[in-house]
Amino acid sequence: MRDAHPEAHHDGSEAYVPAGTPRLGDVVPVRLRVPRGYGEQSVHVRYVHDGEPFTHPARLDREDARDRWYVAEVPVHNPVTGYRFLLDHPDGYRWVNGRGTRHRDVPDGADFRLTVHGPGPDWLRDAAVYQVFPDRFARSAAADARELPSWAVPAASWDAEPPARGRDTSATVYGGDLRGIAERLDHLERLGVDVLYLTPVFEATSVHRYDAATFDRVDPLLGGNEALAELSAAVHARGMRIMGDLTTNHTGYAHEWFTRASADPEAPERDFYYWADGGHVGWKGMPWLPKLDHTSAELARRTVDGPGSVTARWLAEPYLLDGWRVDVANMTGRYGAQDDAARVARTMRATMAAVRPDLALVAELSHDPSGDLAGDGWHATMNYAAFTRPVWSWLRPQDGSDVWDLPARVARRSARDMVVSMREFAAAVPWSVSSRQWNLLGSHDTPRIRTLLGGDRALLEVAVGLLVTLPGTPMVFAGDEVGAEGSNGEHARTTMPWDDASRWDGASRWDAGSFELYRELLALRRGSEPLRRGGLRWFDVGTDAVAFVRETPSEAVLVLASRAPWEGARLRGIAGPGENLYGGARLGYDDGALVLPPTGAGLQVWRLG
Amino acid sequence: MRDAHPEAHHDGSEAYVPAGTPRLGDVVPVRLRVPRGYGEQSVHVRYVHDGEPFTHPARLDREDARDRWYVAEVPVHNPVTGYRFLLDHPDGYRWVNGRGTRHRDVPDGADFRLTVHGPGPDWLRDAAVYQVFPDRFARSAAADARELPSWAVPAASWDAEPPARGRDTSATVYGGDLRGIAERLDHLERLGVDVLYLTPVFEATSVHRYDAATFDRVDPLLGGNEALAELSAAVHARGMRIMGDLTTNHTGYAHEWFTRASADPEAPERDFYYWADGGHVGWKGMPWLPKLDHTSAELARRTVDGPGSVTARWLAEPYLLDGWRVDVANMTGRYGAQDDAARVARTMRATMAAVRPDLALVAELSHDPSGDLAGDGWHATMNYAAFTRPVWSWLRPQDGSDVWDLPARVARRSARDMVVSMREFAAAVPWSVSSRQWNLLGSHDTPRIRTLLGGDRALLEVAVGLLVTLPGTPMVFAGDEVGAEGSNGEHARTTMPWDDASRWDGASRWDAGSFELYRELLALRRGSEPLRRGGLRWFDVGTDAVAFVRETPSEAVLVLASRAPWEGARLRGIAGPGENLYGGARLGYDDGALVLPPTGAGLQVWRLG
Repeated sequence: MRDAHPEAHHDGSEAYVPAGTPRLGDVVPVRLRVPRGYGEQSVHVRYVHDGEPFTHPARLDREDARDRWYVAEVPVHNPVTGYRFLLDHPDGYRWVNGRGTRHRDVPDGADFRLTVHGPGPDWLRDAAVYQVFPDRFARSAAADARELPSWAVPAASWDAEPPARGRDTSATVYGGDLRGIAERLDHLERLGVDVLYLTPVFEATSVHRYDAATFDRVDPLLGGNEALAELSAAVHARGMRIMGDLTTNHTGYAHEWFTRASADPEAPERDFYYWADGGHVGWKGMPWLPKLDHTSAELARRTVDGPGSVTARWLAEPYLLDGWRVDVANMTGRYGAQDDAARVARTMRATMAAVRPDLALVAELSHDPSGDLAGDGWHATMNYAAFTRPVWSWLRPQDGSDVWDLPARVARRSARDMVVSMREFAAAVPWSVSSRQWNLLGSHDTPRIRTLLGGDRALLEVAVGLLVTLPGTPMVFAGDEVGAEGSNGEHARTTMPWDDASRWDGASRWDAGSFELYRELLALRRGSEPLRRGGLRWFDVGTDAVAFVRETPSEAVLVLASRAPWEGARLRGIAGPGENLYGGARLGYDDGALVLPPTGAGLQVWRLG
Repeated sequence: MRDAHPEAHHDGSEAYVPAGTPRLGDVVPVRLRVPRGYGEQSVHVRYVHDGEPFTHPARLDREDARDRWYVAEVPVHNPVTGYRFLLDHPDGYRWVNGRGTRHRDVPDGADFRLTVHGPGPDWLRDAAVYQVFPDRFARSAAADARELPSWAVPAASWDAEPPARGRDTSATVYGGDLRGIAERLDHLERLGVDVLYLTPVFEATSVHRYDAATFDRVDPLLGGNEALAELSAAVHARGMRIMGDLTTNHTGYAHEWFTRASADPEAPERDFYYWADGGHVGWKGMPWLPKLDHTSAELARRTVDGPGSVTARWLAEPYLLDGWRVDVANMTGRYGAQDDAARVARTMRATMAAVRPDLALVAELSHDPSGDLAGDGWHATMNYAAFTRPVWSWLRPQDGSDVWDLPARVARRSARDMVVSMREFAAAVPWSVSSRQWNLLGSHDTPRIRTLLGGDRALLEVAVGLLVTLPGTPMVFAGDEVGAEGSNGEHARTTMPWDDASRWDGASRWDAGSFELYRELLALRRGSEPLRRGGLRWFDVGTDAVAFVRETPSEAVLVLASRAPWEGARLRGIAGPGENLYGGARLGYDDGALVLPPTGAGLQVWRLG
């Protein structure tokens, strides 16, 4: 049985860094926890000011049965102040940064960060987000009466399998609408989610509506502006929140701005787009998605800048959205030699802050987001990089395809590889961002998690377990919770099987066991402050299992996730005993160590101490 | 005996990327070398455009006895285009980036880079730089007649030991001057260096002159403006180059600008400095070094912007400096919420390019330089991070103090730790920068390498061996080559022992063996295109030895450096046999592998194939 020892540890949670956003000129005490017996001879903090590193001694603040706690003062002299810890040791000094402990010199990229830029709202960190693709969620009675626009192809039935490829993927209309969603809010409440995030609702010429024809009107097919106002009111009446989805990178070819820009070179909208070789520039070369040129001040005024902008108007009465998810945020404002991405994000944040102080701004960003999360723009991103892909790589029962279209077979990786990837990506952004990143097991752009896991119930428990126990805000793509399947993003846009219809393979489309799993695990998170706000300490326990502790100054939770039967491990240096909160296994205590029991695939959670 | 296998490999050298600087819109073929038998099923390149990753297939270009060469086209759409390679493999895909091969997902920070920003001049890459601290190098006859200024304390004699601490460190004048340097250029030529880099020469109130009193006059103590013009002409007459040292972060308290700024709040120079709490801001809190505020356009005009600036004037007739080393470049333009560092660097580069196209701009930057080397500012930095510290950490015979004042005992690290550190730091900058970084074993700011190595001849051979064989431009601090000692930066500012005087411990101050070592190794580099321009492939051969290949498309050189007797290793997958160029050991060939012989501490270099 392996012995797992704690490392010296720091993260941005409250046990280590005081809550709140520092201001320039503040001095922030930061704490390092060093296990007793580590052998450190001194501890220093090293921070960078005006581009130059400085070291400053930390002092021993207190000692308990297991740890020595050092504290050091970091002056907040620059808007973002990077720091890490230096431990002197008879075997040579070590650095502690966001990636862990290194026995050699390291670059600054994984330094911890203090930032004067406020994080996203606290509700965002504590939330569970539910992503709804409006056409596929629920139909109200009004839907039957609506005439389909010319681009639309009616689905054979509500329960028909969505097309996986071809033109019909974006044209097949099932007829879900906003009133349908409002009628099903009980489901969200039962599930235990509290933020409804809608993919785009503006009029467009596709069912996904990422090709907006306007930003001024909610698609009549979804019920129009009124239906959005009503849905928002219904959501808020339940103490829940609602977020929209804004496409800032491009519009649809049918957008009213593009129509004017194409027809008249003198139109003010002409400057909203890129023009090259006599035509416009389409996103990723797709002419039906003309790319927006954010150098235009008038475009800014209409989209992101000030109370008259699209950004602001849908946050105001009567729609009262609680924030935006921004589509293709990573490319917004970037084209060739031009890079206005940071400015667009900052402008949008400022515009939103002027509407209400507690709105959320979350960017779509599918790969390494570190260059776009300095802290003064997006509050967070969809966390494909530091959550989805590492989790998939560890849990996939067999080699297969990637979350997207990586042209390679994706192998099952070890727990260690998963954790190293997670730490590498997370280390590049401030903790206040990490703790609000949208962790997701899939979305309307990826295969469904159930499909990836081959329907394995134990692996699903582990996947959802990691979703609710790791730092970040869980996001559930509607349908995942009842066992929806899908082999790619298009195919995954299944309808909700409200009538418990049978799946295309004959089985029930409503997996009540899956719903119960999601419900129970979301409740576990909701009821646990450490799971929502605590720090994160990893323990290396093997290839098939991961163990970590989430902890606040007053409470600690131990999580064990295993993808296969494993041999168990002893964890040294953490408090016991533990009360089981999920999974039912008993945590042993032996020779001063917690004993993780050998388990099969599944999730175990204990409250410690 | 260990078997070391090559990895799949790419770097920015000519075997992998065409020489020259691409322009926006170009398509650049980049090559990946994959050892035969690796088992790859396909190769793709992944690049980031406008913030979004794309993958594109590579095709097999050619195959030789040992490697398969793949080529992929990368469109240069943004000024800096990051890319890495994806290898599909039955065991799961791998990424190849600047840190090596990873069997898991990786962030983008270590991606290779194509940049439209031209590199520093080719002569800089091929050069060997010789750093001279003018007061300590050589006295001309004229020096005797000069009266010392009020701040100066005369040294007891030319051969006296420099003070290691206290006020005298910056006040003790030995009387070296520019004419003295001109009289000793034979020494530089014999040694085999071809760029003379002078620490500051402007009038100041210290012997190091990093506290300029003016940027308009060369200190009369050094011979004044005329002496600089004469020295420059003498240097150029020998086909060598000369670089100056400019302090852009601060001036001295006695600077004429600061005098005016202090005396008159209405003076135009008032805006050149930071003022807080009724006084000025001193660099690192030192009031005698007032920090410059680069938001002032007038300051820019005087220092870095345009033909009238200090930057331009000393590059023009009659001084004709070939470039600048910029002091405290990392902090220049940075203060609190303000960060004009990139703008200052870009402005300075543009000003210099307008004077002559082949001038060099090298920044002092003692830690992670990645944030300051995007490619459009500094051509290179002093390479403490990716060279000096890793080399010191591997070669130091015993634990001791750091290059600077790290408050921890520095342990001897393994060869693997050295290489990982080197790769981590180097991966964050373009190859065109890495190949011009100023590699150094020490400077006027650090202990002397001889002191660090305890006078060990074999370790010195290894240190200088790495200096001349790794990518980057070697810089030698005058005196190192004849065995100068010094326990810290102040103490290391020893005079050159032209008269072969005895050292303070009684031994000769002129170590002819050391000089011969430097001369021979610098000649080895000068005569070898692979050592100056070749790519770099590491082979993992153990704790006490490192092996690597430097290679151009037409020639390969194998380097073996060992700090202690070691057991030898077999290198698979590279061409043999090898002709020894340095060290004398025979390279074996057995069973298709090169056999590195077990050696004692020292350096071996072979030409391969």
